[in-house]
Amino acid sequence: MWRLYQFPLCPFSRKVRLLLSEKGVGYELWRENPWDASDEFWALNPAGRTPVLYDPERRLALSDSRAICEYFEETVDKAPMINGTASNRAEIRRLVALFDENFFGDVTMPLLHERMKKRLVLRQPPDSRILREAMKLAHGHLDYIDWLIDNRTWLAGATMSLADLAAAAQISVADYLGGIDWAGHEQTRGWYSVFKSRPSFRPLLSERMEVIQPPRHYAELDV
Amino acid sequence: MWRLYQFPLCPFSRKVRLLLSEKGVGYELWRENPWDASDEFWALNPAGRTPVLYDPERRLALSDSRAICEYFEETVDKAPMINGTASNRAEIRRLVALFDENFFGDVTMPLLHERMKKRLVLRQPPDSRILREAMKLAHGHLDYIDWLIDNRTWLAGATMSLADLAAAAQISVADYLGGIDWAGHEQTRGWYSVFKSRPSFRPLLSERMEVIQPPRHYAELDV
Ligand SMILES: N[C@@H](CCC(=O)N[C@@H](CS)C(=O)NCC(=O)O)C(=O)O
Ligand SMILES: N[C@@H](CCC(=O)N[C@@H](CS)C(=O)NCC(=O)O)C(=O)O
Repeated sequence: MWRLYQFPLCPFSRKVRLLLSEKGVGYELWRENPWDASDEFWALNPAGRTPVLYDPERRLALSDSRAICEYFEETVDKAPMINGTASNRAEIRRLVALFDENFFGDVTMPLLHERMKKRLVLRQPPDSRILREAMKLAHGHLDYIDWLIDNRTWLAGATMSLADLAAAAQISVADYLGGIDWAGHEQTRGWYSVFKSRPSFRPLLSERMEVIQPPRHYAELDV
Repeated sequence: MWRLYQFPLCPFSRKVRLLLSEKGVGYELWRENPWDASDEFWALNPAGRTPVLYDPERRLALSDSRAICEYFEETVDKAPMINGTASNRAEIRRLVALFDENFFGDVTMPLLHERMKKRLVLRQPPDSRILREAMKLAHGHLDYIDWLIDNRTWLAGATMSLADLAAAAQISVADYLGGIDWAGHEQTRGWYSVFKSRPSFRPLLSERMEVIQPPRHYAELDV
């Protein structure tokens, strides 16, 4: 059985969990906080980052969430998530990078730093200027997702893809941390609420990070 | 003919150029500074980042260097760079992410900021504390590459792969900016000097960024 080293608010681990669940691949959760990582974890991933997926029988460790997703796309036929022509696939991967890097860097990472790391590790109050800036940038990203949904059924085209999983993973962590103001983003809200009711998403929404509580609407299906 | 929007010291554009050249795909260079990007460029890539590869005839724009490399890996058989079993391919992609994200974040990005952006755009002197820290972290990364070369012919295994191109692209930019101290890294130095003499690498080594000069050893083949 695969072991997934992760913590509940790691958006890259969430993307991998959504993919594994859509593909029907079983795994166990192993809790790892990268800011306080064990030697065992560093040995599995010299980058010291979550997620890591490890198969103890084959002693096979996979790291980097995009490398992990490509691995399961290549080895499991069910629920293809990087599908279509070469240019369709390039569009899916472009959007995955946009959410993993730009949305994460602009929104999720500063929220995690101010609302999780400062609370649990650094014992400092959050900087409200940084929080305001992250929430402002979140609006810009949701505007772009609104525009995609106006033009396409799913973010990268006619079918659900890894781009949808990557976006939902980042948005769900930002939403948990109170960083998403849904007003004015009807298209994204509609797409996200469909997503929230998928069986792959339910377990994520019911999990909690110690000490930090999400806003009331976070796990509700009709919001 | 493909157009590659890039600037000479963008490591992700260098990785794409190495791949295109190894695969024998022709392209034209279009200069774009992301810190001063044209409206035309923002329309091609909403992330506003180089590289972008654009085919004007098909109006096809590809962005994110990993998405671009996967596209050519899928469409051009020559010189496979993400090859082998699914776990070999996962190892190649893990290392690409390590160089694109960790090496870039620890070493190349701070060097570009202090030695290029502050000089050309911000008109400020570099911060020597940040430069020293980047050079210290570079040693750690080269130690890891030394260890890989002790155990494998090429970075990800028995054959040259995208991992080698990604590493060489980051190292070459860091070396141009004076951030690499080669002392004590014989294995990496040997691997890199083989790389420097490849026809795909020669054009990169002879190009110059305006105003900023590389150290003497930068383009020499035997160092
Ligand atoms: N490219 C990696 C990024 C993973 C990542 O940044 N994980 C964060 C947690 S959300 C982490 O471990 N950060 C600790 C660190 O960078 O030292 C992936 O896609 O898996
Ligand atoms: N994930 C992207 C990263 C590209 C990237 O960071 N490019 C830099 C230049 S080296 C850039 O355009 N930075 C400007 C910005 O981030 O606004 C890729 O692999 O292509």
